[in-house]
Amino acid sequence: MTEMVQNFLKESLFFSGLDDATIKRLSTVAHLHDYEKGKLLFVAGERAQSFFIIRAGWVKLFRETLDGDQAVVDILTARHVFGETSIFENDIYPYSAEVVEPAKIVSIPLSALKNEIENNHAFAVAMLTSMSRYRRQQEEEIEHRTLQNAPQRIGCFLLRLTDQATDGQARVNLPYDKTLVASRLGMQPETFSRALGKLKDATGIRVKGATIEIDKIEELSEFSCSACSSEFPCKDLKRR
Amino acid sequence: MTEMVQNFLKESLFFSGLDDATIKRLSTVAHLHDYEKGKLLFVAGERAQSFFIIRAGWVKLFRETLDGDQAVVDILTARHVFGETSIFENDIYPYSAEVVEPAKIVSIPLSALKNEIENNHAFAVAMLTSMSRYRRQQEEEIEHRTLQNAPQRIGCFLLRLTDQATDGQARVNLPYDKTLVASRLGMQPETFSRALGKLKDATGIRVKGATIEIDKIEELSEFSCSACSSEFPCKDLKRR
Repeated sequence: MTEMVQNFLKESLFFSGLDDATIKRLSTVAHLHDYEKGKLLFVAGERAQSFFIIRAGWVKLFRETLDGDQAVVDILTARHVFGETSIFENDIYPYSAEVVEPAKIVSIPLSALKNEIENNHAFAVAMLTSMSRYRRQQEEEIEHRTLQNAPQRIGCFLLRLTDQATDGQARVNLPYDKTLVASRLGMQPETFSRALGKLKDATGIRVKGATIEIDKIEELSEFSCSACSSEFPCKDLKRR
Repeated sequence: MTEMVQNFLKESLFFSGLDDATIKRLSTVAHLHDYEKGKLLFVAGERAQSFFIIRAGWVKLFRETLDGDQAVVDILTARHVFGETSIFENDIYPYSAEVVEPAKIVSIPLSALKNEIENNHAFAVAMLTSMSRYRRQQEEEIEHRTLQNAPQRIGCFLLRLTDQATDGQARVNLPYDKTLVASRLGMQPETFSRALGKLKDATGIRVKGATIEIDKIEELSEFSCSACSSEFPCKDLKRR
């Protein structure tokens, strides 16, 4: 079990570049859990105990506005990490997290993370690199809200879920509830449906329930990435 | 001169929490320059030599999309830092930077920054904290694009430029060219003008050329922050 977690952590971008001893130390305090859809992992403002790495399934991060609206911060799937920034927020979770498709999730105590940051210089530097990558990704996200049209934004979201091979086929699994993807992309559900239709017509992707089949990744990237300042495959997004 | 830079760095959020010896080391290799409007500091893709801290004036960070459009990544003013993430991008500037209002800018060689990150553990941790704060700010930015209306977004932008005192008056200087603020907020210039008019009517702020006079910060925050998941004053944005 520990070995399985160990291998999984090694593959995850967040831990890339770390030596085996560090990975091993973290694996020994890690736990793998199965969660049903609907499970609320934690609530914004709650005292933070652990951070999480998704092995399978989907998790929604969200916050509530003072008006009572829900803001979807992100929807995450395999190999994504969340909750880790709580250590910079006085150990308070800055968002709520809910399992939105049955999920396998590894949790690691934040105390172990803090311990590595404090005592393991290579770890602090690896985390800086990972945060910098994430920052770049968010900058592009903000840029996209202005410059990409709705079908392009969906295309970009799908491309980020592929392994970013520059050509060939891919198959991407979305959450069954597509309104989640819509809110993640800042779209009304109707806008999302119309835009997905346009994207299908323009690029030949096929939507089969929650699965999207892409025959030619390059056709999808040609359509989606023209209004972006980054070239596909996005350097800062490589998963492995 | 070095002492002046030293005091300035100490006040800047990016360097907060660092000991005097570190600040001193960085000050001795720092340079302060005056720049005219229009000066291109560096171009995206160029080999990065330095990072920058603004003392006065305005700087625009931007990228060009494959379509040839310009994406305004950010517009920055006093105490903002830029160019520092190049060290995580193979020493390549990830955006271009142009002076858009006469500016005083401190530059520090990236080699000095790298040296601190590699050999000064406290520095690496301080930088992690600073990046985490920035990340939170970006998350809110993405949230705002969906949940706030245009006048609220302008209000939020203004509030972030005040010292975030919870009540009382404030005076904010914007770049003369307001289309810069419009692009920064992802709005068409006409939308921006209309929204600024609405914001004036709703909150009593006064626009005098490039200066905005705010009589009651709490009135502006009440109007602007209701569609945000953060409470004013934003914890993660405090400038000093």
